[in-house]
Amino acid sequence: MPAVGWYNGTLGDPDQMKVPMNDRAVYFGDGCYEACLAVGTRAFAAEAHLLRFCRSLRALRIPFHMDRNALAGVLSECLAAADEPCAVLYWQVSRGTARRAHAFPEGDPEPNLLVTVTPKTLLPRDRTLRLITAEDLRYGMCDVKTLNLIPNILANQRAKEAGADEAVFLRDGLVTEGTHTNVHILKDGTLFTHPDDRFILSGVTRAILLDVCRANGVPVVQRAFSKEELTAADEVLITSSTLGVRRAESVDGMPAGGKAERLFRVLEEGYQHIFSMETGA
Amino acid sequence: MPAVGWYNGTLGDPDQMKVPMNDRAVYFGDGCYEACLAVGTRAFAAEAHLLRFCRSLRALRIPFHMDRNALAGVLSECLAAADEPCAVLYWQVSRGTARRAHAFPEGDPEPNLLVTVTPKTLLPRDRTLRLITAEDLRYGMCDVKTLNLIPNILANQRAKEAGADEAVFLRDGLVTEGTHTNVHILKDGTLFTHPDDRFILSGVTRAILLDVCRANGVPVVQRAFSKEELTAADEVLITSSTLGVRRAESVDGMPAGGKAERLFRVLEEGYQHIFSMETGA
Repeated sequence: MPAVGWYNGTLGDPDQMKVPMNDRAVYFGDGCYEACLAVGTRAFAAEAHLLRFCRSLRALRIPFHMDRNALAGVLSECLAAADEPCAVLYWQVSRGTARRAHAFPEGDPEPNLLVTVTPKTLLPRDRTLRLITAEDLRYGMCDVKTLNLIPNILANQRAKEAGADEAVFLRDGLVTEGTHTNVHILKDGTLFTHPDDRFILSGVTRAILLDVCRANGVPVVQRAFSKEELTAADEVLITSSTLGVRRAESVDGMPAGGKAERLFRVLEEGYQHIFSMETGA
Repeated sequence: MPAVGWYNGTLGDPDQMKVPMNDRAVYFGDGCYEACLAVGTRAFAAEAHLLRFCRSLRALRIPFHMDRNALAGVLSECLAAADEPCAVLYWQVSRGTARRAHAFPEGDPEPNLLVTVTPKTLLPRDRTLRLITAEDLRYGMCDVKTLNLIPNILANQRAKEAGADEAVFLRDGLVTEGTHTNVHILKDGTLFTHPDDRFILSGVTRAILLDVCRANGVPVVQRAFSKEELTAADEVLITSSTLGVRRAESVDGMPAGGKAERLFRVLEEGYQHIFSMETGA
């Protein structure tokens, strides 16, 4: 499938494009990113993603001076070049190009902006997910969407090898989130979700789900829940920008959820309604 | 200063060289590395670095098939091309080039080998170090030398801004290590150092220091010590491949160490002797 790449002003084929060897992303993972779904030239929840991106830049102290409208313009240019019915729009900024040294580079080199648009086939809406659990070895900055993703990669790969779709992290026995998703449970009509702190990324789809809960009178409790609560939940919900709102069918090979399918359906439809309104899909 | 770069078989100027945009190092920091000092074509403690590199590759499950002699040959080729009286030899391997997806890429792409040789001016041997302390926010895989270094970068930058040379991480009140160094203390003639576990990198210079201690009858205790023990130590020792064995003069702006300079001198000379024997410098 064709894809579109963009790097510091040059548009091209990302499978052929190159970046400087001394981009600090290459040897430090020194940057942050965002990814969202796009339908044609419409990026879903773009404002929320741009806002979070600015927060990540501030947390990493990356002096990226392109203003939000200019950045949105670059993203639109890439989407127009791809013109896909459904794609993942990805962008990252690194702390510029310089010889390797831990401290920020001297002379304030320009941060590097990299964008890709990759065609995406969504899973069928009724496709449920298989989960495994994995120890959360990640750093204490999970609220910042950085390029330092090795623990996520290793756990996601273990999920794949177990025939599952996603790994759910446990820190001190409590569920934090998935390798690239947020995790929630429904129990007795209430939605439980990990609080917004440094142990989870504040998901854009998570925020939409919480809005949909409120609009439908579903109480939301933001507190960490245990693995036992996960496996005993009425439904286990998974959210991400590319997966939307889904429910899990199993955790570590044991059936999970399936006891509040009607309520889940209300929430999933609430999300789909917002997605369709904004993207026209 | 000129430097030498090498990427998947191509030698060149690292300030001009490029790597594929889809190298997994670029968007995931998905790789591991080593760095050591070299004098001309002689890399110091190369065997120990190559051994640790293999351990990192195994921990990350990166299928890098180049055998150790072939890798050593590439490193020698780069050192010969640079031919510097003193340089940092750096090499990293990433999990290949592929479109972005968390799980390991399909089709087993070749891992990417990147090497640089950068001229280095060493600090004078008697230059003492100024330290600050910083919360250890890093992940639970600090024993693996990966490219995921954002917490190290942020803490090192804070040290620089405080007029210091290095930040020392504290996890639950205990010293783990520095942002790119190991930290030890001398107290009543005994050397204390954090145990080799997943919270520190098992430093090559640290291992040499421990050998020198043993050769000189200095007891070594591998246990974590507190910030209070750090500031009350007879000497605070810092080791790394580029710094060698050094002592600190201050921690968070307060004088530190300076009470066992003779013993420190014995250990530092022991290290220098080994360095000179192996490199001829």
